[in-house]
Amino acid sequence: MFTLPQKESGAPTTCVGPASTQDLGSSYEDGLEGECSRKPDQKLPELRGVGDPIMFSSGSSYLSSRGRMIKWFWDSAEEGYRTYHMDEYDEAKNTSGIINLGTSENKLCFDLLSKRLSQHDMHWVEPSLLQYPDWRGHLFLREEVAKFLSFYCKSPAPLKPKNVVVLNGCASLFSALATVLCEVGEAFLIPTPYYGAITQHVYLYGNVRLAYVYLDSEVTGTDTRPFQLTVEKLEMALQEANSEGIKVKGLILINPQNPLGDIYSPGELQEYLVFAKRHKLHVVVDEVYMLSVFEESVGYRSVLSLERLPDPQRTHVMWATSKDFGMSGLRFGTLYTENQDVATAVASLCRYHGLSGLVQHQMAQLLRDRDWINQVYLPENHARLRAAHTYVSEELRVLGIPFLSGGAGFFIWVDLRKYLPEATFEGEMLLWRRFLENKVLLSFGKAFECKEPGWFRFVFSDKAHRLRLGMQRVRQVLEGQAQVAEDPPPCQTQKPSDQRR
Amino acid sequence: MFTLPQKESGAPTTCVGPASTQDLGSSYEDGLEGECSRKPDQKLPELRGVGDPIMFSSGSSYLSSRGRMIKWFWDSAEEGYRTYHMDEYDEAKNTSGIINLGTSENKLCFDLLSKRLSQHDMHWVEPSLLQYPDWRGHLFLREEVAKFLSFYCKSPAPLKPKNVVVLNGCASLFSALATVLCEVGEAFLIPTPYYGAITQHVYLYGNVRLAYVYLDSEVTGTDTRPFQLTVEKLEMALQEANSEGIKVKGLILINPQNPLGDIYSPGELQEYLVFAKRHKLHVVVDEVYMLSVFEESVGYRSVLSLERLPDPQRTHVMWATSKDFGMSGLRFGTLYTENQDVATAVASLCRYHGLSGLVQHQMAQLLRDRDWINQVYLPENHARLRAAHTYVSEELRVLGIPFLSGGAGFFIWVDLRKYLPEATFEGEMLLWRRFLENKVLLSFGKAFECKEPGWFRFVFSDKAHRLRLGMQRVRQVLEGQAQVAEDPPPCQTQKPSDQRR
Repeated sequence: MFTLPQKESGAPTTCVGPASTQDLGSSYEDGLEGECSRKPDQKLPELRGVGDPIMFSSGSSYLSSRGRMIKWFWDSAEEGYRTYHMDEYDEAKNTSGIINLGTSENKLCFDLLSKRLSQHDMHWVEPSLLQYPDWRGHLFLREEVAKFLSFYCKSPAPLKPKNVVVLNGCASLFSALATVLCEVGEAFLIPTPYYGAITQHVYLYGNVRLAYVYLDSEVTGTDTRPFQLTVEKLEMALQEANSEGIKVKGLILINPQNPLGDIYSPGELQEYLVFAKRHKLHVVVDEVYMLSVFEESVGYRSVLSLERLPDPQRTHVMWATSKDFGMSGLRFGTLYTENQDVATAVASLCRYHGLSGLVQHQMAQLLRDRDWINQVYLPENHARLRAAHTYVSEELRVLGIPFLSGGAGFFIWVDLRKYLPEATFEGEMLLWRRFLENKVLLSFGKAFECKEPGWFRFVFSDKAHRLRLGMQRVRQVLEGQAQVAEDPPPCQTQKPSDQRR
Repeated sequence: MFTLPQKESGAPTTCVGPASTQDLGSSYEDGLEGECSRKPDQKLPELRGVGDPIMFSSGSSYLSSRGRMIKWFWDSAEEGYRTYHMDEYDEAKNTSGIINLGTSENKLCFDLLSKRLSQHDMHWVEPSLLQYPDWRGHLFLREEVAKFLSFYCKSPAPLKPKNVVVLNGCASLFSALATVLCEVGEAFLIPTPYYGAITQHVYLYGNVRLAYVYLDSEVTGTDTRPFQLTVEKLEMALQEANSEGIKVKGLILINPQNPLGDIYSPGELQEYLVFAKRHKLHVVVDEVYMLSVFEESVGYRSVLSLERLPDPQRTHVMWATSKDFGMSGLRFGTLYTENQDVATAVASLCRYHGLSGLVQHQMAQLLRDRDWINQVYLPENHARLRAAHTYVSEELRVLGIPFLSGGAGFFIWVDLRKYLPEATFEGEMLLWRRFLENKVLLSFGKAFECKEPGWFRFVFSDKAHRLRLGMQRVRQVLEGQAQVAEDPPPCQTQKPSDQRR
């Protein structure tokens, strides 16, 4: 949790934290480790953190203060991005280059996707696709999205096209929802660790903050697993935000969760929704990994499958093709909400988040091809994810490294606390740098606002030869590193080794 | 010019004027005619106008105040959009439907475009196009854009890919530039009449205002033509804004101009740029109609063709395919700026304005096909624009209606002042409604913040049969209407009949 007053100028005034840029085309956040991210539990003084005028005083005189802050986010990420892209692994040209196990992309199915997207039905041009669209999305596409979500979310009744808004990805959707639901400076509750880029998505345009519900690996009270979200923790975080004068407008849930790789049970989901209803909070449910649940035993349920939503007018669901169809570069996301005011307000902002009519046609063709999805794509994708996951988790087991993984998503949440040279985020950073120096890019826990230093996200949704090499390099670092770490970090209270649900 | 104080809540606090939504897929702005747009010359009281809490008090309790404002823009436009789309003209199915001469789209070349976009080279899928992109745009595309602009803007030296940022249209680019160049509440100078949607583009996300440089049809002082922009008028407007406490950060120039359909000469352009440099103002030059100059005699020059820009670090040029390639639904726009801070800050926001990798490939293919552009598309497009323009202007001449048209763009700026039932914007609205009732949709001058009631924008870039029918219906209204108007409006001081340059 953080609190900072607003500045009149509209300049950044909040410690927006160590936003992850992993999934933003840059797989690392070195320069983002500023004042505020090193001391996440400290109450920050006025104007410290991202909005700190000292931090931007040397910035461009051509930009507004918010422009400098926006650029700073880029530059910070850019530093790491450069490191990686200047020396990217290539099996033909640069076998000693950096292996990227940091960016959450599914690189296992380009063959299937390329083939499908190259089929004749994808190539369609007609005047209506070249003219100004309905900013909610073409009706033909919203109809397909409604059918698709009805089927794959197992909704009790058919979902309706009028509740659908399509746009160029969920980053945009976070930006639009934050703006239309919150005033400047208001906040969303979010359990940590979480996909850190959301910090920027709600802040850069919307000036909306995140109030953290800190979870940790210790299993206490009624918890049954590490990093478990409970209503009690939600209540506490809300109360804390209120006591600090932060107006909380909503709750963000990521399900399947990123970076934990697990899911919320329908019972838990229901409890969180009831909590939100009690406090009149909007709930934004990010389900971008909904079809990437690769373990059949995992009983994943979309929020849209619930028999009755506690507060349907305040429940807003996002989905995209970026993860589930491994096409983060295609830029297609969608909102489902029964609240027509919210749908309309988001649509009004969609003039800034629009996607090509030609792509809208392609997405409609893809989503309606149930045969291909069910008989070709999903079985094969899940089998490949499962195999890759098995490989990486076995490697970790052999190394004796504890980890969490719930059979969903593209990543394993790995406990490297015992390898830290010191039990701090500086120590985490040092270890992360060792990995990078040894040519393997990972994501460190601070980027997800993890409370405990030493957790790393390993992305496994990549080809076997790259995974092998990446894991070899990880092992080299840890075997060298294991001797360096003198004391186990004090916060290491339990080993959630290979927890699954 | 308007002035309003900021509200702490971030709620809308400025009379953002009668934003045109014509080119946003809705071709009309009935509901946008609120308090502030009726009295554009009055200094507005606190919180009047769009941000008026009374106006939004009946709005949704689910939305933030800015969310309600954003939705209001949609609803207001939606009303007219519905009218048109519920009864759209169709030559097969609805010959008594509404003819749209309001939306500025080029509907003359879908045959050429469909053919080109259907060619084999457009259909290319490869992993890099499906993965997270460089948010500035793929390098292969930025290289093509730089070459394309070098050639068509006749730049004295080759333009550089590093100065290019690509995104999903110029609406987004206005939003991003406003945000990174201005603080909340600061303003851009803009000469009126202007493409009214810019009001929303800089305001909805960016909270940036427009300070109007009012031009009129009267030729006075050193003017040589109606609605002439001079440095003197710029200086006055800047001074007025300053005196009202409005911080002006830049100047927006649209060249070729919308809705006037004319251009700035290189000499004028130079003068405006020198004025901007003198006051350290950024200049945003919108050149989206640069290849739609259909009269060869018009000596159009892109700002990028100037031998030396007075202040290159503050000169930012936008171009898109929406107008010049008649593909407003394709969502492709580009920024060219030598200022790397501005390019980077805009790129940082491009995570919310990204376009598909597949579309980036298509655009690169299109822009590099110089043979097709030079030998097929441009000659044919210009010939068709010229023919359509000739038809509509002849019709106007026969009717004895004065108009302005400069051989560029898709529209004629038509002086219907003598047909107004009263010389007010209410009178303008009444006449506009008569047109709509007679099934022809036009854009009225108030939507462009024209100072004088009675001007209308006629879009001529449509097929002959629709133009014929549209002009017939216009004639019917005017011939019936001519008798209704009892007195000529007092502001009718001159007739800029058929002025061209």
